[in-house]
Amino acid sequence: MTDELTVDFEPLGRRARVAEGATLLEAARQAGVGLNAICGGAGTCGTCRVRVVAGEVSPPTEVERDVVAEGFRLACQTRVLGDVRVDVPRTSITAPQRAQIEGRERPVELDPAVRSFDVTLAPPSLADLRADATRLREALHQQLPRGGRGGVVRFDHAALCQLPAVLRENDWCIRIVTKDNEIIAVAPTGTLPLGLAVDIGTTKLAAYLVDLESGETLAAAGAMNPQITYGEDVMARIAYAMEGGTRARELQQAVIGGLDDLTRELCMQVGRDTGEIVEAVLVGNTCMHHLVLGLPVAQLGRAPYVPALADSYDLKARELLPPLEGGVHLAPGANVHLLPNIAGFVGADHVAMLLATSIGGGAVTAPLLGLDIGTNTEISLAVEGRLLSCSCASGPAFEGAHIQDGMRAAPGAIERVRLVGERVEYQTVDDAPPVGICGSGVLDCVAELRRVGALRANGAMVQGSHPRVHRTGKGGAFLLVPASERCAPRDLVVTRKDVNEIQLAKAAIRAGIEVLLGEAGLEAEQIERVVVAGAFGTYLDVDSALAVGMFPPLPRERFVQVGNAAGIGAKMALMSRRCRERAEEIARRVEYVELTTHPRFVELYMAALMLPEPLAVSS
Amino acid sequence: MTDELTVDFEPLGRRARVAEGATLLEAARQAGVGLNAICGGAGTCGTCRVRVVAGEVSPPTEVERDVVAEGFRLACQTRVLGDVRVDVPRTSITAPQRAQIEGRERPVELDPAVRSFDVTLAPPSLADLRADATRLREALHQQLPRGGRGGVVRFDHAALCQLPAVLRENDWCIRIVTKDNEIIAVAPTGTLPLGLAVDIGTTKLAAYLVDLESGETLAAAGAMNPQITYGEDVMARIAYAMEGGTRARELQQAVIGGLDDLTRELCMQVGRDTGEIVEAVLVGNTCMHHLVLGLPVAQLGRAPYVPALADSYDLKARELLPPLEGGVHLAPGANVHLLPNIAGFVGADHVAMLLATSIGGGAVTAPLLGLDIGTNTEISLAVEGRLLSCSCASGPAFEGAHIQDGMRAAPGAIERVRLVGERVEYQTVDDAPPVGICGSGVLDCVAELRRVGALRANGAMVQGSHPRVHRTGKGGAFLLVPASERCAPRDLVVTRKDVNEIQLAKAAIRAGIEVLLGEAGLEAEQIERVVVAGAFGTYLDVDSALAVGMFPPLPRERFVQVGNAAGIGAKMALMSRRCRERAEEIARRVEYVELTTHPRFVELYMAALMLPEPLAVSS
Repeated sequence: MTDELTVDFEPLGRRARVAEGATLLEAARQAGVGLNAICGGAGTCGTCRVRVVAGEVSPPTEVERDVVAEGFRLACQTRVLGDVRVDVPRTSITAPQRAQIEGRERPVELDPAVRSFDVTLAPPSLADLRADATRLREALHQQLPRGGRGGVVRFDHAALCQLPAVLRENDWCIRIVTKDNEIIAVAPTGTLPLGLAVDIGTTKLAAYLVDLESGETLAAAGAMNPQITYGEDVMARIAYAMEGGTRARELQQAVIGGLDDLTRELCMQVGRDTGEIVEAVLVGNTCMHHLVLGLPVAQLGRAPYVPALADSYDLKARELLPPLEGGVHLAPGANVHLLPNIAGFVGADHVAMLLATSIGGGAVTAPLLGLDIGTNTEISLAVEGRLLSCSCASGPAFEGAHIQDGMRAAPGAIERVRLVGERVEYQTVDDAPPVGICGSGVLDCVAELRRVGALRANGAMVQGSHPRVHRTGKGGAFLLVPASERCAPRDLVVTRKDVNEIQLAKAAIRAGIEVLLGEAGLEAEQIERVVVAGAFGTYLDVDSALAVGMFPPLPRERFVQVGNAAGIGAKMALMSRRCRERAEEIARRVEYVELTTHPRFVELYMAALMLPEPLAVSS
Repeated sequence: MTDELTVDFEPLGRRARVAEGATLLEAARQAGVGLNAICGGAGTCGTCRVRVVAGEVSPPTEVERDVVAEGFRLACQTRVLGDVRVDVPRTSITAPQRAQIEGRERPVELDPAVRSFDVTLAPPSLADLRADATRLREALHQQLPRGGRGGVVRFDHAALCQLPAVLRENDWCIRIVTKDNEIIAVAPTGTLPLGLAVDIGTTKLAAYLVDLESGETLAAAGAMNPQITYGEDVMARIAYAMEGGTRARELQQAVIGGLDDLTRELCMQVGRDTGEIVEAVLVGNTCMHHLVLGLPVAQLGRAPYVPALADSYDLKARELLPPLEGGVHLAPGANVHLLPNIAGFVGADHVAMLLATSIGGGAVTAPLLGLDIGTNTEISLAVEGRLLSCSCASGPAFEGAHIQDGMRAAPGAIERVRLVGERVEYQTVDDAPPVGICGSGVLDCVAELRRVGALRANGAMVQGSHPRVHRTGKGGAFLLVPASERCAPRDLVVTRKDVNEIQLAKAAIRAGIEVLLGEAGLEAEQIERVVVAGAFGTYLDVDSALAVGMFPPLPRERFVQVGNAAGIGAKMALMSRRCRERAEEIARRVEYVELTTHPRFVELYMAALMLPEPLAVSS
């Protein structure tokens, strides 16, 4: 079938050409329109709402009638039958989100895996007919300090292909970059070597550009993971990949396209060229790790959830995906290093987090707890040289998903809520007019409602407890921002279902912590420090998290929020071979605890669902 | 400019779409029509003759008027101005040619660079969550004999991507192939590992499919090098590549496309899959070597003619050219090994030839001479542990080019000529009706004409010396086959110019031999054996070569014709790591002698131009 029908997306002005029968979501992907599709196209989340302005499309499906208001269609359910014009509401587009690139730095001795040298060669003559490659190798042996040459014996093929021209255009005086015993880049002197560290989150990408000669971080930037349009969580992406055909490849192309854009942006910020980047370190959860590498993910979606690859891994950037197929544009011979995974749901990002915090240190004796809170929450407990880790499905509620008025931490998202008497005080991201509520805002709201007695332990709303608590058909709701106050047609509310979503999420985390404590034979009070990392972990209010019982009731001062520790860990591994070794030691040392089959998990989870007594914590 | 005009090639039924102003030769390349273009499109060889049947084209150029008969055009000179229909004469198409795949085999102990093992793994369970890669690596350590596992530590990325599915589809019992410390292939048991050896000649490709478990050669096949349509000799190809843009990439794609076709043909012959080929060895002259690797060739076309790379080289087949860009289809993790080059004009094919014959042996004491005769002739002289090599531009006359009625050794080519009294006896390839004369036929003719006194020492024809010698405006011609005898409109003749072409070619070879003898301080009579290899070397009549003075006057029994020794050498390197080491020793030992700047070369060349006295050799 030929791609004969056009689909125009307004007001964006993007056009796709598709075959008859393609969905509007497929057309949007082709046109580069980042439509929300949290459920991965199953038609259940209702986030890909669009309005068909003109043209013939398939009639509404059963599933659409349940979730879509009059006049709207779900892009994932609507098939194109003729040339179509579509209006895309702002709310259906993946919003730019607060970049999570800040994190507590730890000092690292600069010792990168790549090294650069300037060399000068004698030009060939009739009396000296050595091949270019031989000439360079022999010059290196003569000119380099003993430690530096370290047995350079191989050429990266892409670097070799550049060598003859680079030599002749630079009067036989060039800069080379080596990794292990391979020459990976040849260039004019004064350029190279830059490094790239990226934390590939399920939702967000955070990237750092580092000068590998000085160790200086030149630029940092964040962006959405473009895979988000294929489903919000890892299970939705695994399901999409498992549909076969080129789907897994699409996911790989999406994330690598995002990496490429981010890399260009970083380089543009500081006037450098992406071709100067000779080494990259990527971290991500096991699913992100596999998808970016092009490894199958089917086995990650089925018990017993084993990864294809756990060890740390090095490959050429061009092997990820050739540039012609949408690969990332680094130096042609650039390598990519991936930190090790621990298990199917505890990935290299958690290893990086352990590396970047004191928790991964081998000499830890006092109990330390580390959490990387996100759609999936990884938890580690270090004590007496042991390192126990588990993963719990905390769900996307903290990212604002599955929450009635939820949204990500984009401008206008309510991120802080306080109830002062009958007044509701709130704060939004960038102080923009309120648009919705992000995870930390919902968490605050639940904590505050519980504090003022408006919620029972099971999350039910107490009618009459607060003037803003209303009765609804679905267990009541709390009026956070009336429509009148925000000059919009609709109130922003927190429903009983929203409260329950937070309960499910926090219970999973708390049960994970309790299982690890049990495995280590510890009581919660013995924990000396709790390190909270990750996107949500950075912005949550620890008091609120304590109030809802997400964490064990410990004094507030034992908690520390460290920002994007995974990104910082990736940067450390970029700058230091010793840090890579330490990451491997960490991955080897971890005792992985599988929660899904743990005998005490369900019992602990059920217990953790309840909201604690308001007096149990002081806020 | 859009590709809006169509060019139809009849009677082949191929169509190209080109922009206005494109030449018919460019259109032919696009349509996959293998038009002859010996001069590389300069308009001087007149081999790309076509007839424009319909449509508008540019008027004939100056250069065309000299070389083309009425009604014909040169495809390289004719530009498309509208939709065009073109008739392609059979003689303008690169003819299928006698495959040169036979050669004297030398026994080799099987010890390939790749090894295969069958392994059985325990499936994962909740009690055993090891990653697939870890599981395989640990099983190898347990199950393999100590010598076999040899520290397998890495995975080829393509093999790793296949691992999860291959394990699960084969009940955790699979075959793996390793090279050095890398797992390069995973597959069902009972398949793999095959090897491919290819001699990439400027004109022809010769390929061998080998079972790397038994050492058996399963199939052999030859084909034209598709680069031939870009120019007959290496200089024409270098010039084409140097025009810039994607031209070098086109040449690479052409030869790799040819390799791919040949690989499929070999596998089809024996019912195997190209994906079972895990290792390939390629040999070729330095230019072919560089072009297939995608290395620049500009520096090969300019003094002092240095290669980019001389050492032996290993890379992934997919690095040659990704399959999506027209790369060769082997096992995804297959490696390619290239034997070392010696100099800009003495390449890996000559190293392979030395490896496959006694000449490359380290223990040679008696003087041995080896020649690989082609468009470029490489000559080596081994004596007392020394190994001297040079290269001479013998030109394409031996391939039938630049000869009035010349053609390659395709069916119908006259390959043997004897003058018996006034009668002319000849033999054609495949005993087909005579179409033209190939190199060995022209050589015979010159030798016979000299023998019967019809040629002077300077190559001039002696009028009246033979009834078939005719006066022409251009120094006379010998009537080889009258038009009447072959039922064709035209006689087949050998002209004085043809004789001169042979003189130029044989003088270059003879002068090269004499320079090497001088360097070694030897007299010709001391040479104990002369090994003649290569396409033309296989089919030439040694007596004729002696008669024209191509070789020093030695007894006939000192000569041995060994066939495609370069191909045999490639196969040896495929089957044996020891042979690869020997090839490297050979390349290191060679003392390369540059003829172009050698003080005695011109003098020796001038002397060698003359034809010897008929009595000087006995025929």
